[in-house]
Amino acid sequence: MLIVQKYGGSSVADTERIMNVARRIFKTANAGNKVVVVLSAQGDTTDDLKARANEITPNPSKRELDMLLATGEQQSVALMAMALHTLGAAAISLNAAQFGLLSTSTHGNARIRKIDTDRINSELDKNNIVLIAGFQGMNRYDDVTTLGRGASDTTAVALAARLHAGKCEIYTDVDGVYTADPRIVPNAKKLNNISYDEMLELASLGAKVLHNRSVELAKKYNVRLIVRSSMSDAEGTIVWEGSKVEKMLVSGIAVDENVSRISIVGVKDEPGIAFRVFSALAKEKISVDMILQSIGRNRTNDISFTVACDDLAAALSVLEKDDTLICDHISNVPKIAKLSVIGAGMATNPGVAATVFEALYDVDVNIHMISTSEIRISVLIDSEDAKRAVRSIHDKFGELNVNLSV
Amino acid sequence: MLIVQKYGGSSVADTERIMNVARRIFKTANAGNKVVVVLSAQGDTTDDLKARANEITPNPSKRELDMLLATGEQQSVALMAMALHTLGAAAISLNAAQFGLLSTSTHGNARIRKIDTDRINSELDKNNIVLIAGFQGMNRYDDVTTLGRGASDTTAVALAARLHAGKCEIYTDVDGVYTADPRIVPNAKKLNNISYDEMLELASLGAKVLHNRSVELAKKYNVRLIVRSSMSDAEGTIVWEGSKVEKMLVSGIAVDENVSRISIVGVKDEPGIAFRVFSALAKEKISVDMILQSIGRNRTNDISFTVACDDLAAALSVLEKDDTLICDHISNVPKIAKLSVIGAGMATNPGVAATVFEALYDVDVNIHMISTSEIRISVLIDSEDAKRAVRSIHDKFGELNVNLSV
Repeated sequence: MLIVQKYGGSSVADTERIMNVARRIFKTANAGNKVVVVLSAQGDTTDDLKARANEITPNPSKRELDMLLATGEQQSVALMAMALHTLGAAAISLNAAQFGLLSTSTHGNARIRKIDTDRINSELDKNNIVLIAGFQGMNRYDDVTTLGRGASDTTAVALAARLHAGKCEIYTDVDGVYTADPRIVPNAKKLNNISYDEMLELASLGAKVLHNRSVELAKKYNVRLIVRSSMSDAEGTIVWEGSKVEKMLVSGIAVDENVSRISIVGVKDEPGIAFRVFSALAKEKISVDMILQSIGRNRTNDISFTVACDDLAAALSVLEKDDTLICDHISNVPKIAKLSVIGAGMATNPGVAATVFEALYDVDVNIHMISTSEIRISVLIDSEDAKRAVRSIHDKFGELNVNLSV
Repeated sequence: MLIVQKYGGSSVADTERIMNVARRIFKTANAGNKVVVVLSAQGDTTDDLKARANEITPNPSKRELDMLLATGEQQSVALMAMALHTLGAAAISLNAAQFGLLSTSTHGNARIRKIDTDRINSELDKNNIVLIAGFQGMNRYDDVTTLGRGASDTTAVALAARLHAGKCEIYTDVDGVYTADPRIVPNAKKLNNISYDEMLELASLGAKVLHNRSVELAKKYNVRLIVRSSMSDAEGTIVWEGSKVEKMLVSGIAVDENVSRISIVGVKDEPGIAFRVFSALAKEKISVDMILQSIGRNRTNDISFTVACDDLAAALSVLEKDDTLICDHISNVPKIAKLSVIGAGMATNPGVAATVFEALYDVDVNIHMISTSEIRISVLIDSEDAKRAVRSIHDKFGELNVNLSV
């Protein structure tokens, strides 16, 4: 079977861990599999390189930052190839320019356009284990790009899809996907299975196990994803469509604390205001998440929405520059928590939302905003309430004997 | 004028030095010049990366080592581009794959085959300062190669030749080429001019100011080379053909302490023995330097030669494996010094050799081997005699009123 494996930065942080991962890879290859491995930069390398850039300027050119950061993954794959050689394995490292991962030109957050598999296939045919530098790409001008923080997952899934791999194993420092963060909820359970859609909601809502674009891609190309630990032999969590048939009611609870709320208070109630505001933000590549429009007095509205904390300053600056936006004032909460309850069975069971609200009421947590999808309920709450809220919801569904794990 | 500048690792070792070099580059550009800059890896980066590889294996794959080491120069150019941006300069970094430096496939010591100047010229046309990662290349399989220790000089000269640059400035931590190592001979003088041939002898004989292949290339394409300090505004030393007319008698004294001597004692005196020995060594890419064949007793010869210290073990292993080599025994001196006196005027002045030998006799230095070229006399002496010998020769030519500097 052709297997794509991805190891995160903590799994290759030092020589001992590199050797440990090399043994895992070699074992997989020795079992008769062809193996393509995607690696992240070692440990804190990416942060260290960013710090070196920031010694020179707080605002480095994104093109040059990509050029700098991409060296981290190149170092990882070269060292891993050496480690595999010491075990007697045939292995070769390739950076994005070498095997051909063509991306868009947006430095720092490029998207994959095309993956060339000729070189990889030719190395696999020579019985090489192929080590791929994750996170990086090359745009049509031959410039180095990076695919966004955590995007080595995406590189792995895209390769698995393109190479028609039997499975894509994402090795990390936790042993799978949990019903809630085990550091907050000690009795959280590991899921054996989860569907793409549920994982997608979890990933995009702050559960840091998988990069959300990797899950989207896995869903699109039906890649069998497995999340497991590089430190143990535990089975991990399988993410794929087949999991859906199990119809879990609630599969997990996630908290995203990287949220800022902006409120535009007293906007004149006329058509097109919301459209203008959000298209101006989109033009600056600011993603807006939850949106709430309340009907105010005197034919004015209040529009509230959330953005990632990093985008707060840019979003406020867009709004302040907009002369056509007439309102009383613009307020913001720089840090607020978004708690989400995810479950494929939710759509057909209206009691879930009520249970969530009850659990929050039990522990006196105030809800600022609510947004729902077919398989998700998200609420905006104060950051200091987040842990209490997660525990209460987890307990409440436990009491009710709701099947929290599969 | 188009100027190529090269800065060594110590000149870009930290943020402060990077900013210092950025100001120099910007000043050159502001004076109306187009500037292409070749950079080495910062400070000890290359050694640190090698150490990380050696933590995994004492004998890493040369392909993977090149993949690893090339990241050092890529980091330098990205950081320098950021530094130039902070000064308001337009600048872009390029690695070897991006601008297209095609090399041979010998990892660790590849030779330049072809340089593509399209990308560089297009960036210069956009008024960018172009920052080139030195030391690295790409072979025809798109694999990363490195051009050998110190080869960033060669990258710079090759680019200067290919781009028809007005001059090629090599910035280093000394302010020019000296008649002898100033740490050994305190009254050594800085040369204002030196010819390619003299520089070539000096470079290949242990004066670490310039990489010898860079001087060969400069000679071949008549590139005006200037060696100067990145820390001061001193004028430096000009290396080019024009210098030749000054016909210095002796232009410099160099010592190479990275020399091992091997003696094959009691070889049967028959034709082809020397050829077989040296072609076997050449096959293993071991460079042999001085060779001495002495006529012994009983129709046997002794063959002695020198290799770089790093090649000693490999050379001995080649000789031991050679079943056709019949001899009494093979002996070696792992560390010995080669002292060389260089001067274009030497060919027409037979007194120079005699003066050298007299100076060595004065301070009781024993000569093990002698080799000469048109513009050079080299002697093999014990390492512990090297400093005493250099000082004595330098003084002797000074006494004789020989023009040591120009």
